[in-house]
Amino acid sequence: MTDQMRRITLARRPVGQPVPEDFALQTGPVPDPGEGEVLIAVSHHSLDPYMRGRMDDAGSYAASVNLGETMVGQGVGTVLTSRADGLAAGDSVTGMTGWASHAVLKGGDLRKLDPSVPVTTALGVLGMPGFTAWRALSEYGRPKPGETLAIAAATGPVGAMVGQLAKAQGLRTVAVAGGAEKCALATEKFGFDAAIDHRAYDSASDLRKALSKACPDGIDIYWENTGGKVLEAVMPLMNTGGRIPLCGTIAWYGGGTSDKLPHIWRAILTKRLNVNGFIIFDHWHALPDFLAEITPKVAAGEITYLEDITDGLENAPDTFIAMLKGGNTGKTIIKV
Amino acid sequence: MTDQMRRITLARRPVGQPVPEDFALQTGPVPDPGEGEVLIAVSHHSLDPYMRGRMDDAGSYAASVNLGETMVGQGVGTVLTSRADGLAAGDSVTGMTGWASHAVLKGGDLRKLDPSVPVTTALGVLGMPGFTAWRALSEYGRPKPGETLAIAAATGPVGAMVGQLAKAQGLRTVAVAGGAEKCALATEKFGFDAAIDHRAYDSASDLRKALSKACPDGIDIYWENTGGKVLEAVMPLMNTGGRIPLCGTIAWYGGGTSDKLPHIWRAILTKRLNVNGFIIFDHWHALPDFLAEITPKVAAGEITYLEDITDGLENAPDTFIAMLKGGNTGKTIIKV
Repeated sequence: MTDQMRRITLARRPVGQPVPEDFALQTGPVPDPGEGEVLIAVSHHSLDPYMRGRMDDAGSYAASVNLGETMVGQGVGTVLTSRADGLAAGDSVTGMTGWASHAVLKGGDLRKLDPSVPVTTALGVLGMPGFTAWRALSEYGRPKPGETLAIAAATGPVGAMVGQLAKAQGLRTVAVAGGAEKCALATEKFGFDAAIDHRAYDSASDLRKALSKACPDGIDIYWENTGGKVLEAVMPLMNTGGRIPLCGTIAWYGGGTSDKLPHIWRAILTKRLNVNGFIIFDHWHALPDFLAEITPKVAAGEITYLEDITDGLENAPDTFIAMLKGGNTGKTIIKV
Repeated sequence: MTDQMRRITLARRPVGQPVPEDFALQTGPVPDPGEGEVLIAVSHHSLDPYMRGRMDDAGSYAASVNLGETMVGQGVGTVLTSRADGLAAGDSVTGMTGWASHAVLKGGDLRKLDPSVPVTTALGVLGMPGFTAWRALSEYGRPKPGETLAIAAATGPVGAMVGQLAKAQGLRTVAVAGGAEKCALATEKFGFDAAIDHRAYDSASDLRKALSKACPDGIDIYWENTGGKVLEAVMPLMNTGGRIPLCGTIAWYGGGTSDKLPHIWRAILTKRLNVNGFIIFDHWHALPDFLAEITPKVAAGEITYLEDITDGLENAPDTFIAMLKGGNTGKTIIKV
């Protein structure tokens, strides 16, 4: 433990893809917890695509990070000093620590970690990505045995969980991923029935041909987390009555466009699709049910996961930038 | 009654907007009904935007009309000869007669008309457009008192019904229509709280400013039947948790595009919107409930409607083409 607190702040708002100069590493005194608060030594924090949205001034689904403020995010760590009921020094906890070595949070905003699983699972398979997959698949995907689900970023922490949950419910699961290595991971580690390397296809129509072969009965659920070429490829393959939980449009975070809107929009009509925008932050009330159901499966190894842990808080910006470009494999975590 | 049957057939598939040469008027003998069938003298038939989709080869939500076949559509008329149980010569009926002077249909595919309302209401306010409005507003719009609903083509037969039903449920209703005359109709005849003339605004952003003033609390339900500029104008004004029943994209039937897909698609995510493609043909099971609820209100004058009746089957193509360009006011009907 150091007596200085280190944190990564938002130095300026990115234009398109973030660059290292958009962030700053700042050092200062470790804060003291007030009444009802807890001081935590953060051991790991999470990097997630939604954080890109928080860097913009407005128009995203949650409050922006102000310039000079600590980048937001979930972390895990150990209680150093507690002035909150029910928490004591030494407890392992998780909460919205931000990209920082220390955090002071209200006791009620922290959750004690289950000792049957590693602490980092609280950031991934048992954290926001896993919860997102579990909740939106049932609420908005509404899977039925025998149906086909397609998902991009399939080896990411959300995609891997969606695939495993859908497979366990009797669906054919088809992964779209970037590169042969991730495709092998999708089928071998996460049990997808097929995997398509989107980098092998320059155009949406070529990608569509490959997807069409992998989805002989069409696509009933398209888990939309990417937009762009994959969306254009998928839309004509959707079956009537299909569902599209819309959890991200990462391909367009850094600009870019599509001239296919009329076709995509019209397909919603002709195929009677149900497209649901979905933000996991609206659904925390269901978290206890998720943890109760999935924690034992993770502890027992029935649900598998992959973590991509980078050492050093100072490396968070570069790791985040690489993650947005698809450079990660598994849940991206910073070991502070 | 003539001893010749006249019908309008699909002569060729349109490229973009239909032109008169895409249709042909054909004359031939009046067909005889088989066992279980009925011969009808058609008095009026309906013209609806969905028919444009049927003229394409594929990709629409229902079977295409084959080249040389009668254009599809609902009609009303009088039974001339019945070989079906429960129907007798002289009965007023409605069914999928097509654009024709006569039709032979199975008895089970016909419905007797309610004598308390004019026969033409079966094509509009009590037909597919009214039923579409009633069904999709409750199923996919899910209106709540105090909310705001916006709709384009607001004086059309669907729009006028949506507006009246929503208003009766305590919503603020905002019409988008083409021209001062239709705007006056929207507020004065159909009771919309405000009406915006989209022709007065060249750009989506100017149209958005006008809409924003008319919708001070944002838009909770956007009834999507047009696509194009109105969609681009509306999307940033949608409230979190808003609903978009998607019933048509008429602005794009004849080509055209938008470069705003990333923004529109992303707004579904950030605003947690629910977009539902909707085809009324999936919902006929609910028709009896609709007729039971709405027929007395139409008979009592509590729900108002407007019909735009053109004389002569031979004028159906030109009338249809004009309707697709927004040239109609009220339910477009051909008096055969």
